[in-house]
Amino acid sequence: MTTITTHTVEYPADGLTMVGRLALPAGAGRAPAVLIGPEGPGLNDFQRGRADALAELGYVALAFDINGGRWFSDPQEMLAHTTPLLADPDRMREIGHAALDVLRAEPRTDPDRIAAIGYGTGGAIALELGRDGVDLRAIATVNGLITGRPGEAARIRCPVWAGVGSEDPIMSPAHREAFTAEMQDAGVDWRLVVYGGALHAFHHPDVAQDVLPGVGHHPVHARRAWDDVVALLAECLPLPVTT
Amino acid sequence: MTTITTHTVEYPADGLTMVGRLALPAGAGRAPAVLIGPEGPGLNDFQRGRADALAELGYVALAFDINGGRWFSDPQEMLAHTTPLLADPDRMREIGHAALDVLRAEPRTDPDRIAAIGYGTGGAIALELGRDGVDLRAIATVNGLITGRPGEAARIRCPVWAGVGSEDPIMSPAHREAFTAEMQDAGVDWRLVVYGGALHAFHHPDVAQDVLPGVGHHPVHARRAWDDVVALLAECLPLPVTT
Repeated sequence: MTTITTHTVEYPADGLTMVGRLALPAGAGRAPAVLIGPEGPGLNDFQRGRADALAELGYVALAFDINGGRWFSDPQEMLAHTTPLLADPDRMREIGHAALDVLRAEPRTDPDRIAAIGYGTGGAIALELGRDGVDLRAIATVNGLITGRPGEAARIRCPVWAGVGSEDPIMSPAHREAFTAEMQDAGVDWRLVVYGGALHAFHHPDVAQDVLPGVGHHPVHARRAWDDVVALLAECLPLPVTT
Repeated sequence: MTTITTHTVEYPADGLTMVGRLALPAGAGRAPAVLIGPEGPGLNDFQRGRADALAELGYVALAFDINGGRWFSDPQEMLAHTTPLLADPDRMREIGHAALDVLRAEPRTDPDRIAAIGYGTGGAIALELGRDGVDLRAIATVNGLITGRPGEAARIRCPVWAGVGSEDPIMSPAHREAFTAEMQDAGVDWRLVVYGGALHAFHHPDVAQDVLPGVGHHPVHARRAWDDVVALLAECLPLPVTT
């Protein structure tokens, strides 16, 4: 049984005071580190728990915030905040860099071994950090296959793993094709997993209960998508073998 | 270090004498079992080695044969044999059932826990066993996304995992869409992994050296696709935890 340490961290970004969850693994040395980007509604205990789960595995993990500590339970309020954000790569990068600065300032973080994973809007932010040329070891995006500004994907220097539900009308087949064409044209090392039958936000038990059409939880694929992300981290941010 | 046991097994199917590789894990008890279907050129040391690798993990594994012991190094000879086979589900099922009978006759095999994985033509055969209603625990097909006869996919009762290279012109986007639509319409629990930049036969260092256009080895994605198949087996055919 390992003992992790967790902190609530507040930091400014996008004109707001963000409230993230920083989780540290057992021990005292430096460890590879992971940014976790949340969905449009915001950061709640679900993604906070993933920071803790990654710390249990041995990573420093920061589940970052995009909404100034708020959880938008009203879909219209969520969309009013998220839609312009997703159309503004510079704002997404500011939010991502602010989180990255918090993670890098943590003495336990190995600054040369950082990955960014994200879900929906948080996945789009992870991708924007890559398009901004940040030295990441891996990028994972679940349900957030947002194409960037022309030419910038060539700055991505790490493996990109993407997951999406086959029946997701928000990340439609046209979105997927545009995204994968962007990755392929830029020479990125990319993969796409299509989870059969899954809808948008399939990974998230709370978001998937929102009243937006096309959204629905898929517990089996949710578990698989998490296992796939953990496998990506094992590939790109290997941990010391523990006995 | 575990000690596996391997056998060359000969058995009749499709008017030929097939020559497969049966690999048994260390120990004496029953174990979950895996069929491994080879590519159109046939069974060579590459897939024989996978039977051994799965036995090292703890599975009974049979790398089966589709060409009567032959390896077609001439692409035209390969296509002359494979093209009519792929158009004939009954022949594919005969080849698959013959291999399944060999696997089930092995006393070490747990007959209630069998998975079928395959590559190219071998993947199509694994799928046909599912469409024939065989009680499998998992089906994996790499580079073999062949649509079956209408209505028969509804007999598939296990998870189906499929992998393909994004740039594969033989398993084209139209093939992938037809295959995933078949799985989705039938209510199958399915996934598709698209490996960015990979061509047909990307998983196989020998097949990918054939002179067919659209074929090429991708060592990084080849390793990932193998890890993905092993993860599927871990999900659907869990092994006892060893210490």
